[in-house]
Amino acid sequence: MAGRNFLFVPGPTNVPERVQRAMVVSMEDHRSSKFPDLTKSVLEDLKAVFKTTTGTPIIFPATGTGGWEAALTNTLSPGDLVLASRFGQFSHLWIDMITRLGFQVETVECEWGEGVPVEKYAEILAKDKGHKIKAVIATHNETATGVTSDIAGVRKALDDARHPALLLVDAVSSLGSIDFRMDEWGVDICVSGSQKGLMLPAGLGIVCASEKALKARESSTAPRCFFDFGDMIKANATGYFPYTPALPMLYGLRESLTMIKEEGLENIFWRHTYLASGVRAAVLDGWKLGLCAKDPKWYSDTVSAIVVPEGINGAHVIDVAFRRYNLSLGAGLSKVAGKVFRIGHLGDLNELMVLGALAGAEMSMLDVGIRIEPGSGVAAAQKYFRTHDNVPKKKVARSEVVYASQSMGSTEGAH
Amino acid sequence: MAGRNFLFVPGPTNVPERVQRAMVVSMEDHRSSKFPDLTKSVLEDLKAVFKTTTGTPIIFPATGTGGWEAALTNTLSPGDLVLASRFGQFSHLWIDMITRLGFQVETVECEWGEGVPVEKYAEILAKDKGHKIKAVIATHNETATGVTSDIAGVRKALDDARHPALLLVDAVSSLGSIDFRMDEWGVDICVSGSQKGLMLPAGLGIVCASEKALKARESSTAPRCFFDFGDMIKANATGYFPYTPALPMLYGLRESLTMIKEEGLENIFWRHTYLASGVRAAVLDGWKLGLCAKDPKWYSDTVSAIVVPEGINGAHVIDVAFRRYNLSLGAGLSKVAGKVFRIGHLGDLNELMVLGALAGAEMSMLDVGIRIEPGSGVAAAQKYFRTHDNVPKKKVARSEVVYASQSMGSTEGAH
Amino acid sequence: MAGRNFLFVPGPTNVPERVQRAMVVSMEDHRSSKFPDLTKSVLEDLKAVFKTTTGTPIIFPATGTGGWEAALTNTLSPGDLVLASRFGQFSHLWIDMITRLGFQVETVECEWGEGVPVEKYAEILAKDKGHKIKAVIATHNETATGVTSDIAGVRKALDDARHPALLLVDAVSSLGSIDFRMDEWGVDICVSGSQKGLMLPAGLGIVCASEKALKARESSTAPRCFFDFGDMIKANATGYFPYTPALPMLYGLRESLTMIKEEGLENIFWRHTYLASGVRAAVLDGWKLGLCAKDPKWYSDTVSAIVVPEGINGAHVIDVAFRRYNLSLGAGLSKVAGKVFRIGHLGDLNELMVLGALAGAEMSMLDVGIRIEPGSGVAAAQKYFRTHDNVPKKKVARSEVVYASQSMGSTEGAH
Amino acid sequence: MAGRNFLFVPGPTNVPERVQRAMVVSMEDHRSSKFPDLTKSVLEDLKAVFKTTTGTPIIFPATGTGGWEAALTNTLSPGDLVLASRFGQFSHLWIDMITRLGFQVETVECEWGEGVPVEKYAEILAKDKGHKIKAVIATHNETATGVTSDIAGVRKALDDARHPALLLVDAVSSLGSIDFRMDEWGVDICVSGSQKGLMLPAGLGIVCASEKALKARESSTAPRCFFDFGDMIKANATGYFPYTPALPMLYGLRESLTMIKEEGLENIFWRHTYLASGVRAAVLDGWKLGLCAKDPKWYSDTVSAIVVPEGINGAHVIDVAFRRYNLSLGAGLSKVAGKVFRIGHLGDLNELMVLGALAGAEMSMLDVGIRIEPGSGVAAAQKYFRTHDNVPKKKVARSEVVYASQSMGSTEGAH
Repeated sequence: MAGRNFLFVPGPTNVPERVQRAMVVSMEDHRSSKFPDLTKSVLEDLKAVFKTTTGTPIIFPATGTGGWEAALTNTLSPGDLVLASRFGQFSHLWIDMITRLGFQVETVECEWGEGVPVEKYAEILAKDKGHKIKAVIATHNETATGVTSDIAGVRKALDDARHPALLLVDAVSSLGSIDFRMDEWGVDICVSGSQKGLMLPAGLGIVCASEKALKARESSTAPRCFFDFGDMIKANATGYFPYTPALPMLYGLRESLTMIKEEGLENIFWRHTYLASGVRAAVLDGWKLGLCAKDPKWYSDTVSAIVVPEGINGAHVIDVAFRRYNLSLGAGLSKVAGKVFRIGHLGDLNELMVLGALAGAEMSMLDVGIRIEPGSGVAAAQKYFRTHDNVPKKKVARSEVVYASQSMGSTEGAH
Repeated sequence: MAGRNFLFVPGPTNVPERVQRAMVVSMEDHRSSKFPDLTKSVLEDLKAVFKTTTGTPIIFPATGTGGWEAALTNTLSPGDLVLASRFGQFSHLWIDMITRLGFQVETVECEWGEGVPVEKYAEILAKDKGHKIKAVIATHNETATGVTSDIAGVRKALDDARHPALLLVDAVSSLGSIDFRMDEWGVDICVSGSQKGLMLPAGLGIVCASEKALKARESSTAPRCFFDFGDMIKANATGYFPYTPALPMLYGLRESLTMIKEEGLENIFWRHTYLASGVRAAVLDGWKLGLCAKDPKWYSDTVSAIVVPEGINGAHVIDVAFRRYNLSLGAGLSKVAGKVFRIGHLGDLNELMVLGALAGAEMSMLDVGIRIEPGSGVAAAQKYFRTHDNVPKKKVARSEVVYASQSMGSTEGAH
Repeated sequence: MAGRNFLFVPGPTNVPERVQRAMVVSMEDHRSSKFPDLTKSVLEDLKAVFKTTTGTPIIFPATGTGGWEAALTNTLSPGDLVLASRFGQFSHLWIDMITRLGFQVETVECEWGEGVPVEKYAEILAKDKGHKIKAVIATHNETATGVTSDIAGVRKALDDARHPALLLVDAVSSLGSIDFRMDEWGVDICVSGSQKGLMLPAGLGIVCASEKALKARESSTAPRCFFDFGDMIKANATGYFPYTPALPMLYGLRESLTMIKEEGLENIFWRHTYLASGVRAAVLDGWKLGLCAKDPKWYSDTVSAIVVPEGINGAHVIDVAFRRYNLSLGAGLSKVAGKVFRIGHLGDLNELMVLGALAGAEMSMLDVGIRIEPGSGVAAAQKYFRTHDNVPKKKVARSEVVYASQSMGSTEGAH
Repeated sequence: MAGRNFLFVPGPTNVPERVQRAMVVSMEDHRSSKFPDLTKSVLEDLKAVFKTTTGTPIIFPATGTGGWEAALTNTLSPGDLVLASRFGQFSHLWIDMITRLGFQVETVECEWGEGVPVEKYAEILAKDKGHKIKAVIATHNETATGVTSDIAGVRKALDDARHPALLLVDAVSSLGSIDFRMDEWGVDICVSGSQKGLMLPAGLGIVCASEKALKARESSTAPRCFFDFGDMIKANATGYFPYTPALPMLYGLRESLTMIKEEGLENIFWRHTYLASGVRAAVLDGWKLGLCAKDPKWYSDTVSAIVVPEGINGAHVIDVAFRRYNLSLGAGLSKVAGKVFRIGHLGDLNELMVLGALAGAEMSMLDVGIRIEPGSGVAAAQKYFRTHDNVPKKKVARSEVVYASQSMGSTEGAH
């Protein structure tokens, strides 16, 4: 198939060429005297991404799922009770893991399309005078439904109830793309992965633990070894890892952290909001379709789940998109299988990539019989992009750029 | 700047990932006993791309401009007369070279936007009873104006006049993208380069010489050394090169020739026509603008030069496209500087890449004040793509694909 | 520092250029309809590497340490008894993990430099009439001491005692380098990783489970989730993974498996024996030093631990080698820290790489005051290589090659 | 064939991983407003490599052979007389080119193994009162015989004779490896290529022209176009190229220039002398063989041509080295074909790479029946390396490093 694939699943995301290049490295001795430079620099720079100064980032050669497991087994003991809420496939899977690993869970069932039920959490926590609940989990961004939750609200619920439970957050599909504030929100463990906002292939489970979480680890009796924070922290202290690290991934991470610094975290968040707004303009204003997210306050800036009309199978849209237009969209998972298709709009993206994807989604929908106005989505997104700035005002916003008559290099040229 | 650049200049074109990968090679001894395998296989496979069985492909570590020089100096002697026509920057530059290298040239001046004036050539050749004209040059695809010429027609003009002049053709921006028939059209030297339809970086000047051209070389007295066919042919015969070859480029060429075989030359031509038709639908039906090419028969399937309205500087469109939308468009060169901007649509491209570029061109034009209907170009191209097949009927065309309800892999999944 | 590092730690090993190239891939949808082709082909080809037809290979985005954990948690229940032996840092660490994960362990302590005590195992198993021992673990190749153990012997001990315990084997630093026979030896779980004989970066924990092991999993109650075989096997069945796979690693594995097929497993084993014999010739015949391995039957073909003379710190040899000669040697670990240095000789290696490393080790030893004969090690290894075949007789062995007077390409040439 | 090839031909040389990585770039518009940054920075940094402040570096997408042609055609007119000397295949080929391009040449024939005959040049120039000689050419480093010439001496001969002829120098296999001083030596055109000391693949012909050479160009009437300095200089002035540049090569050059800056030119020269001294110790002291270079003053620090004993064909050594040991050596060319084999020791090299190659050459010589002492060459080179500093005293030389007992990272570790 000629040309590039348009990758619009909500992860893995496009690996920037700079990062891809950085990963082309020969193997080296991971116990050499120069190796600690790399370890220390990535661990240090990860702190800024988590917005923490007191937290401890830990990099597992694993995935976000491994990060979930690390978060639970390092802080809880068998039989401990966890408060959770289910509103999508990923919040569901974490709950499922809690049970499988031998912990108890009190689950608040929500509609898919809603986020963490902050009021309900507040109520439950307030009632839990005996502090049976040892940890509260919250999925910051539910990848299956395109819903972003209010983690600051969860923190407030805990604080209002003066509840000592740990706050464990899944930020796999938000970290580095949607504002996340480890310290300010009092998050105890944040779980993320390499293949989303960090713009790397999958292969690293990246977590950050608060001092309180590390303290909890000392009395936690859940069996663990590969995912033990202690081994990592001990080895990391001198710049090493307890077992052979995934070198290309670490070098890639080094480069992606540099890129994040260069663009600036706040500018990255702004860009994600801006591109997501373009997508939502296409869906809502152009195509006149609905989002799975029930309310604008839930809208995710990294992924949108678009509800297909009754009688249409969302999987068909995805199939046509992939096979006819080389466009990869996300499928509806589990409860919303067939009912939605998803556009991931996170990571290393710009307007034209998004517009190409919207054009492809549009054609695919028309091909399978969805009656939308041809060209309407692209036009709505174009309008949004043309009338909004792609960087915050603090930087020189696009609206202020005067397009000079500067010509593009030489106007003469040979082959 | 986040995201990928949309490269829509008419060369260099996008290097497919497979080719880029193939170029990551360690250096090796280019005089080893295993090296000839590579040389021989690329030279052999190039023949199919030129559509020749009797011609001799030659690969210079240079560019298409070097190929022009090789074509002239290997066949002509100082003072020899060449028949040429000028209708764009590239046909102009080759004429300029003829003079600089000490040959005579009779130039037919044409409007920029027209192609090789076949009738005029026929007339001149018929009159040249003394066969003073030693060579006729023709630019198959004029990259500056988006015009494809009728090389078969030039051959006919030569044959009708029973004229023995050599036919030298510039196919830099057509070879491997637009049908070119070395043997059938009796082309004596075809000049091309690596950075267009062959989907490589610039760095190789690739020519093909007919037996007649090689015969002419024997009596040609123009000074030449680096570009001498003789040194190349002698060394190539045993699988070597007279001087150190550009190894990564040869390995890249090996891979691009394999990709061309896999897709099939005729399918590639079809795809270029199909994508170009989408672009022209956007320009003519959507934006209601004009092309630099004066007549549909001249329309190029690899590059379109779009005329901007009076009072607008085409360079501004390009500047906004690049700086605001990360889209690289081609500038108007020389005589048409400022009057046009160009969209290159050749090489490793598909529908969504083209639609993204059209969306960007559209926004850029609007941004600099060109009054086109927002979204109109994209919608026109989408319509073209949705209603036409992207492969010839011999293959299973897209219109015949039944989109099954096959779902896309698992509908459950974790990070 | 100019030039390439000579990487002679026993893992990670050199990633061949072909594999490195294969890993330069754009991200893609791991749930697309074409993805299963990749999954299925690597899982299938792994079977040959494990020498199994009935076993089930499983690929975790983790490391060999993760593989150890998977082996234990998928087959045992809390409190289960495991028979183990300790004779090096890696056999030690697995034993340590058994305890940390909540199992019981009966450890046979051996001298470091010996291997699995088969007779002792036989004795213990024979006595265990009640079959309290649920699993026997064995480290096929102890990376810390350069010792290879007799897994067939362990199998025989189990069979002789008609003992039903599972046989779990660490083949991290042997698989793909030293003969390993899953089916013939009745191994129930073999644990390996990507960064040794499979010639990839670290990042994959690769295990293979027998039917008996999968059966045991059904009644095993150890908590597990990330490393659960069940999730993997269920998703793998349709060509997918339960969580996002490490794409570049899978593509790299695809290529390394192809290379292994091309060279042939038996030829690879032969090459490892041949290169290791050259190293041992240098150590024993040239330098007149000793190996940590107590007896020739234990000699490992993938790593040699060389005992430095009394009064010398092995770490100094390694330090000089790295800083002065850009040579990475392995350190002595734990009990043998300072007493040995290690040369890893596994993976993508040839004679000259080994000779360069031996030359470097030699100079480093002289630099820190070890009184060896200058040049003696290299000369001894050269002698071995010149007088032995580097491929088995079934292929055309080197000794049979007639060196023709064929010249190397052209004997003329320019830059 | 397992393991890495040992590339010891005198070009192409090993491309450092950093440079290889830098070359993995997407294509881009070479006429964009950001492109000039790259052009200008590489042209500027090349000056330091040529040791010039007044010269103008020019980069052709060609090879060193193209550079020779550019040097001649930009400065001479048809029939002009050039003074030259022949003492190897490369000095021969440049002389051959002079004739083929229509110039006159007075050639001083020397023994192969000698360098530029400075006294003879002085004599001829002194006699040429009418200044018929328009240019003097000199091969700084004759790659075929391993001979470095005295360019300062040639300058002195010109000055002593107050002769206005241009001084054109081939520094293809010396630039960036052996001290070359454009300004100090009054060189008018220096010709080099990318694939030697600049550590890139072949594909760039890099020349530097003095102001005097550029002045001469104005009255030179030799036909030229592709290699015309004028087109280049005009386009380079604004940061562009007259035809499409070889982008990956330019990005690679950017990185190699950075590496040269980091190591320091003088340190690089020192390293080349140091490594070459090790090779010569092996040849002369170890193997007791001779060099093609007739006198120590001619010894080249980038390539050594080793004379094989009577009755032995040097090509056999090379053949065995390549096929049995994966070692690429240079063949004897033309007059010395069969009589010598060459070891290239330039570019990105270190001690262990050289020792591995020497070990391989040693074994290959023994295999074809040359009676040298086994291990003698390696031991002699090792001795040289151990007793000499690999950096000049100004840096902290190796002999001053105190090897601390610092251990190499952790002495515990898992897979």
